[in-house]
Amino acid sequence: MKPTLPSWNNGPVRSAIEDFVSGVVAPGGPQFVAPSERIAVFDNDGTLWAEYPMFAQVCFSHEKLRELIVATPALAGKRAYKAMLAGDMAALKAMPKQEVFEPALAVHAGMTVPQFQADVAEWLGRSQHPRYQRGFDTCYYQPQVELLEYLRAHGFKTFIATGGGIEFVRAVSQRLYGIPPEQVIGSSTRAKFDFAGGHAEIVKLAELGSFDDRDEKPVNIELHIGRRPILAFGNSDGDLAMLRYVLGGKGPNLALLLRHDDDAREAAYDRDFHVSPLDQALDAAGKEGIHVVSMQRDWTRIFP
Amino acid sequence: MKPTLPSWNNGPVRSAIEDFVSGVVAPGGPQFVAPSERIAVFDNDGTLWAEYPMFAQVCFSHEKLRELIVATPALAGKRAYKAMLAGDMAALKAMPKQEVFEPALAVHAGMTVPQFQADVAEWLGRSQHPRYQRGFDTCYYQPQVELLEYLRAHGFKTFIATGGGIEFVRAVSQRLYGIPPEQVIGSSTRAKFDFAGGHAEIVKLAELGSFDDRDEKPVNIELHIGRRPILAFGNSDGDLAMLRYVLGGKGPNLALLLRHDDDAREAAYDRDFHVSPLDQALDAAGKEGIHVVSMQRDWTRIFP
Repeated sequence: MKPTLPSWNNGPVRSAIEDFVSGVVAPGGPQFVAPSERIAVFDNDGTLWAEYPMFAQVCFSHEKLRELIVATPALAGKRAYKAMLAGDMAALKAMPKQEVFEPALAVHAGMTVPQFQADVAEWLGRSQHPRYQRGFDTCYYQPQVELLEYLRAHGFKTFIATGGGIEFVRAVSQRLYGIPPEQVIGSSTRAKFDFAGGHAEIVKLAELGSFDDRDEKPVNIELHIGRRPILAFGNSDGDLAMLRYVLGGKGPNLALLLRHDDDAREAAYDRDFHVSPLDQALDAAGKEGIHVVSMQRDWTRIFP
Repeated sequence: MKPTLPSWNNGPVRSAIEDFVSGVVAPGGPQFVAPSERIAVFDNDGTLWAEYPMFAQVCFSHEKLRELIVATPALAGKRAYKAMLAGDMAALKAMPKQEVFEPALAVHAGMTVPQFQADVAEWLGRSQHPRYQRGFDTCYYQPQVELLEYLRAHGFKTFIATGGGIEFVRAVSQRLYGIPPEQVIGSSTRAKFDFAGGHAEIVKLAELGSFDDRDEKPVNIELHIGRRPILAFGNSDGDLAMLRYVLGGKGPNLALLLRHDDDAREAAYDRDFHVSPLDQALDAAGKEGIHVVSMQRDWTRIFP
């Protein structure tokens, strides 16, 4: 039996998804899309799991930051590091998102990816989300996991395109979303090949490689996937370029934007969330054919 | 019926491949590898198709170069462009491979990827390999296509890790090798998101993003795939780091190096091919457990 969408309410959004998928898989129909072209991309923070009041990776980094500053004292002078150590959310919110992410990306400099991911797994195993009082890795959205499974059951290949660190998200993507690491695109640090002692490792450097946000998202999607997705799901202005890229395709496509409007069950924020606002994208949605998904209206439940 | 390797002669290399794969797929056996970890990476030029006396992409670029120099006269002063226009192979051979590739990567600046790939397809449809007097896209190696199919039939996910341009190779990878674009890693130019006129496109820039050769190959493999492959197949010093990366894995692994030693059926070159020599890797092979594949000894035929 094919997966359905039990945590999605009947309504215009669910119908738009089901109608789109039915058209895509109908052989010989006007909306048919070959399986190889059924590419779907999802943002992660705020789209697949909770991001409010702060990204999981930033919380993780806060803990790792003290160790890093001991090893690299020059970093202590940078305002994002200082603000993070002090827990100064107001200062962080006033900084560009890229600057806020920098410490998050730097905490694994000098480590191999498996070492870094072991750290992430260890932290996830004992940390609690500050707002929901449950493990971060249980703060993913049940309706989205159902949607991912539903898409895959209809021949879609599902990808993540995240502003978060690529290895951080890869540490959970298979377990939480059924998405293997090679289908995760994200922000990255540069890395180097190390063959010291005759043993080959990839070692992460502190230098930023790509900040996978806004215009860089579709650019990285092209770099990693090599074709235009036909479905994209985001939740912030950082996802607008990716949604527009999908809408610019010649064939059938679907662009979705999650609105956090459910303070009782999750959080209500959009234009005023300075770390990652939903502002321009919300204005563009109606004009450009982006479907706004309301947590309150469209989802019967939020977390698993 | 599972694919076999009809174009591979019996011998130590074929046995090594078959023994490796048998071990990897044997449930409960000491060499068993979970399907998700069965990642195989192949170089392209000289490994999957002919590269001698010059990479296909360089031949393609030669034709496109005159148009480019009309549009961007400053490029005419660069020695790689000059040498290429003059067909001065000796000068090109004396330059670093990265410099030789620069014109090849620059010819699609300002184009979208579909526009560039349409150009590639048009060129492939009418061009002839200078040595073999047949279309470049028929100069791929039949034994390698069989090996790719054999690996996939045993649960492997096959990737290309090429020093060539990522979009150039993606233009042929599905048709020649059964490898979809999202499983091709390669050299890349930077690109930008363009939303002029309300229509979203990714436009390629002349600036080099990554030159996917030598140490950069395993670094890009980690960036795109996120786990260490268990099989790698190359043919030049540019592939040695990738082979070492595979050999550094904790579980079973197989590293293969193709030696062009068959002047009658293809070409005989290795240490003296300045564009892409097989020199250090050949010295390392015996010491480090890399299997050297001889075209002459191991393949019953070369081209399809």
